[in-house]
Amino acid sequence: MNNCDVSLYLVTDRELSLGRSHQYIVEQAIKGGVTMVQLREKNISTREFYNLAIELKQTLKPLNIPLIINDRLDIALAVDAEGLHIGQSDIPYHIAREILGKNKIIGLSVETVEQARSANNLDVDYIGLSPVFSTQTKHDINTPLELEGIQQIASFTKHKTVAIGGINTQNTADIIKAGADGIAVVSAIVSQKDPRQAACDLKSIVDKNK
Amino acid sequence: MNNCDVSLYLVTDRELSLGRSHQYIVEQAIKGGVTMVQLREKNISTREFYNLAIELKQTLKPLNIPLIINDRLDIALAVDAEGLHIGQSDIPYHIAREILGKNKIIGLSVETVEQARSANNLDVDYIGLSPVFSTQTKHDINTPLELEGIQQIASFTKHKTVAIGGINTQNTADIIKAGADGIAVVSAIVSQKDPRQAACDLKSIVDKNK
Repeated sequence: MNNCDVSLYLVTDRELSLGRSHQYIVEQAIKGGVTMVQLREKNISTREFYNLAIELKQTLKPLNIPLIINDRLDIALAVDAEGLHIGQSDIPYHIAREILGKNKIIGLSVETVEQARSANNLDVDYIGLSPVFSTQTKHDINTPLELEGIQQIASFTKHKTVAIGGINTQNTADIIKAGADGIAVVSAIVSQKDPRQAACDLKSIVDKNK
Repeated sequence: MNNCDVSLYLVTDRELSLGRSHQYIVEQAIKGGVTMVQLREKNISTREFYNLAIELKQTLKPLNIPLIINDRLDIALAVDAEGLHIGQSDIPYHIAREILGKNKIIGLSVETVEQARSANNLDVDYIGLSPVFSTQTKHDINTPLELEGIQQIASFTKHKTVAIGGINTQNTADIIKAGADGIAVVSAIVSQKDPRQAACDLKSIVDKNK
């Protein structure tokens, strides 16, 4: 199992970043307390994805913050990222692990309590509980797990858990109290006027409620 | 340099296949003389791409026809395909070679005479000359190389060349006479009523004009 701190996990989204670069958002967010960063990109060429990943890696490396690539194992390999995050419609987990090796972080999204149970048979490094609440960031139509789902999964999972979907300063305390080890956010940081302050506020709620 | 026969190279396209499966098209096309098959998919999930690649590999393996994956190095690795085809907006060639190793086929699309010249510095296994003529299959708006471009590139390239874009039974002879080692086609096979006969017709024109 690879060590990773999922307390405050930033997932990028250029469309929601109010025109600001990944670099700016990420640097500010890390100053505010973000512990991991996931690069998520859809509908861009592989070369563009690769270039963004290289840039982000240069930003994160000196700060000692792991770069996790969403979905694309090729990009994770190409930039030697610290890890890969996969969902249920991405590459099968065992294939990803075989190719990436045991020293890379692999996170898996689970969308139901049953999927979380199955994940207990896998040596993933964390599971993403997705979505906790309904959200406009992702357009998948999955039934939210809600706090009850988090509690239920936290009661049996052997993995670190990070909740994602519709999380903000208003509901973070409840999510952590329900048993999640951390929160993953997009707009709660990238769309905020001051991403550093936003991260700082979220981080202090997470830490206080652990 | 990995050996590959680019004489008649089939590139898949589900939308143009008149509702018929990859498996059907590919089996028929190979009976007709296709020497290589490239799986090209856009706008599907990684898992769907992976599943299609696995299926296609099972079809091709016993027939001893190499499976080449378009763009996605992760899929090529995941299904242990025989090779990868990359374009100018895909992963950089040297990264792909480093990750795939020297025993896999890597093809690179070149869109200009200058790019073909640069490719002489790379140990790619073939270059795709793209597009030869204008085509409706790909929506990139590149100036076609035309027969003059093929001739020019054939005069200096150290690589095998396969022409793609707008190729049919009417212009295949001219392309081969201009110096291409083979042709890559989509609709000239996948959209034909009888893909086996279509492949057979194209193959015999290629072979006669070499």
